[in-house]
Amino acid sequence: MQFSIDRQKLIASIQEVMVAVSPRAAIPILTGIKIEATEKGLTLTGSDSNISIESFIPAEEDGTIFIEDIVPGSIVLQARYFPQIVRKLPENTVQMEADQELNVTIKSGKALYNLNGQDAEEYPQLPKLQVDEQFEIPTDLLKSIIKQTVFAISSMETRPILTGVNMQVVDGELTVTATDSHRLASRKATLEGVEVEIPSIVIPGKSLDELNKILDDSIETVEVSMTNNLILFKTKNLYFLSRLLDGKYPETSRLIPDESKTQLRIKTRDLLQTIDRASLLAKEERNNVVKLSTIDNSRIEITSNSPEVGQVAEEMALEAMTGEDLKISFSAKYMIDALRAVECDEISIDFTGAMRPFIIRPTNGDPILQLIVPVRTY
Amino acid sequence: MQFSIDRQKLIASIQEVMVAVSPRAAIPILTGIKIEATEKGLTLTGSDSNISIESFIPAEEDGTIFIEDIVPGSIVLQARYFPQIVRKLPENTVQMEADQELNVTIKSGKALYNLNGQDAEEYPQLPKLQVDEQFEIPTDLLKSIIKQTVFAISSMETRPILTGVNMQVVDGELTVTATDSHRLASRKATLEGVEVEIPSIVIPGKSLDELNKILDDSIETVEVSMTNNLILFKTKNLYFLSRLLDGKYPETSRLIPDESKTQLRIKTRDLLQTIDRASLLAKEERNNVVKLSTIDNSRIEITSNSPEVGQVAEEMALEAMTGEDLKISFSAKYMIDALRAVECDEISIDFTGAMRPFIIRPTNGDPILQLIVPVRTY
Repeated sequence: MQFSIDRQKLIASIQEVMVAVSPRAAIPILTGIKIEATEKGLTLTGSDSNISIESFIPAEEDGTIFIEDIVPGSIVLQARYFPQIVRKLPENTVQMEADQELNVTIKSGKALYNLNGQDAEEYPQLPKLQVDEQFEIPTDLLKSIIKQTVFAISSMETRPILTGVNMQVVDGELTVTATDSHRLASRKATLEGVEVEIPSIVIPGKSLDELNKILDDSIETVEVSMTNNLILFKTKNLYFLSRLLDGKYPETSRLIPDESKTQLRIKTRDLLQTIDRASLLAKEERNNVVKLSTIDNSRIEITSNSPEVGQVAEEMALEAMTGEDLKISFSAKYMIDALRAVECDEISIDFTGAMRPFIIRPTNGDPILQLIVPVRTY
Repeated sequence: MQFSIDRQKLIASIQEVMVAVSPRAAIPILTGIKIEATEKGLTLTGSDSNISIESFIPAEEDGTIFIEDIVPGSIVLQARYFPQIVRKLPENTVQMEADQELNVTIKSGKALYNLNGQDAEEYPQLPKLQVDEQFEIPTDLLKSIIKQTVFAISSMETRPILTGVNMQVVDGELTVTATDSHRLASRKATLEGVEVEIPSIVIPGKSLDELNKILDDSIETVEVSMTNNLILFKTKNLYFLSRLLDGKYPETSRLIPDESKTQLRIKTRDLLQTIDRASLLAKEERNNVVKLSTIDNSRIEITSNSPEVGQVAEEMALEAMTGEDLKISFSAKYMIDALRAVECDEISIDFTGAMRPFIIRPTNGDPILQLIVPVRTY
């Protein structure tokens, strides 16, 4: 194997595949990065067996040459050293070469590294995806959906299915839901021209987090394909494969109340900052509870009480209120997460009593819904 | 106690005193910040009993009012909550009030905090400094001196005196030295118009690190005073007090060779980057050793070898060389630290053999000296 490559292109690709590489991988060779050169270009692969990422650097694109002097071949290099070396090389071009004895040389300017490589034949083959279902989604929409839902997954392994995000496509409408059973985040989106039906699948939240990190906004659409246990997100030069979670996702629609006894309309940013301030005194406590009380139909008060430290109270103006007076306590953290996710200047909150889950929605009609289960206070 | 204060001024002062506050302070009240209001202004105090910092906010300065409605008094507030609260308050002005029962209210806009304060009488009095010796030093010079020396202190408590930085003033010349016995950093400076003589004192390295963080470059000079066990750094509104280390600092001047068998002149930045690259493969090993070999009188080679991972070699041009050929091994980390400290485009290195300490000096004549003890390799 041999080639001469643009260093910045190589750095960018290394960063993408490093997202999947874990220094604690169960299979030792997975602590490395696989490099495969063909006449068409270079493919880097990183994998922790749950997530696998392939990043392709074309030899030439739109008339610009990125890779030259290619002799096809492949090698695996330690992810602990290779990325740092490339980042610190002195020149804009990097020459790499691997011989039959797996000796690798990396050259740039006067710097010369001789590294011990590993046999690429020993690197696990990525599963070939027998594509059952497939659709396209705009990249920015996919990134929004991830941001608006994935934070609500459970971090506890006691119900593994809740560490994932539920997705389905019915009649051209995508529905994405995440819940840890104390709160729920849901987002719908209409997929133009998509006719495929995707039954309920569950994608590990961690996979979506990592995908979100490396999806490039400048790429217009992502192709999503799946089989019964794998999902593939594919763009022109990126191939992101994740396993799916086994098991049945709970039926969440019945959690969402269909009536409302009190509705508040309120500025998102003001509420967020007020809740944030009220939560300061309770930071160290497990539940970090704040209380919302209506004063009259134009004002609410947010309060919190931490006997050791003190109390905090802040009044806020409402944009509108309908229905009954209300006092309700909830986790400040859940509320802050939900308010950050709605992405609208104004929200409405629908309550059906101090002990029932309440619903936050943006007032611009975006199909985003955030549900929070209140906390019982005595 | 009562006052109304500019929030940004309060935030800046809190940040300064927080440098001295430790959440693990042995005396519980020292986990708080002391606030004292007088007609002249507000004094905040933080201390971990090794370092004490007082920051003063004048009620008025150059015609600008920073504090109004002052009723003198004092209180201690938990450092775990108070700084965060002030940072997140909604308005530019903060009203604070403390009553006889140590109840403190903090108000800004519609946000109202009620906190439990502690009695300021229980806060330890800062030692009154019976000033024996005193001199003035330009702030930028003091900051440079700290940066150029303090990294070389020992982090091991086995020889506590080496965790400090040695300082003396003789005939108007300040000499500052730090060493961990494997390397040494020394800096001299002429103090204009200073006639006082300061015998050898040792300031904890940590104190100087913290001082460097909060010394404001816009303040021209720092007044330095000391007694036999304390040192005070004072600017217009800041009072930084540190204890001194007990014990005799080793005589370091005899470590510095007065002859040279090989002298190299070399570009600082090039050498730094080359050493940095050569050290990548040895990062995880304790000694992180690289080897410097002269090739001829215009070139050297920097190499490193890590049997498990591979080798690296890089050739570099010299600006000049005199004396014998040389092969020498040393810690890449020590060399990088030293090169970063010299602050000059070009350095000279004087060697007196592969087993003897070598000396790095800037070629611009600045009185900075970095000594490194080489590593024996077999």
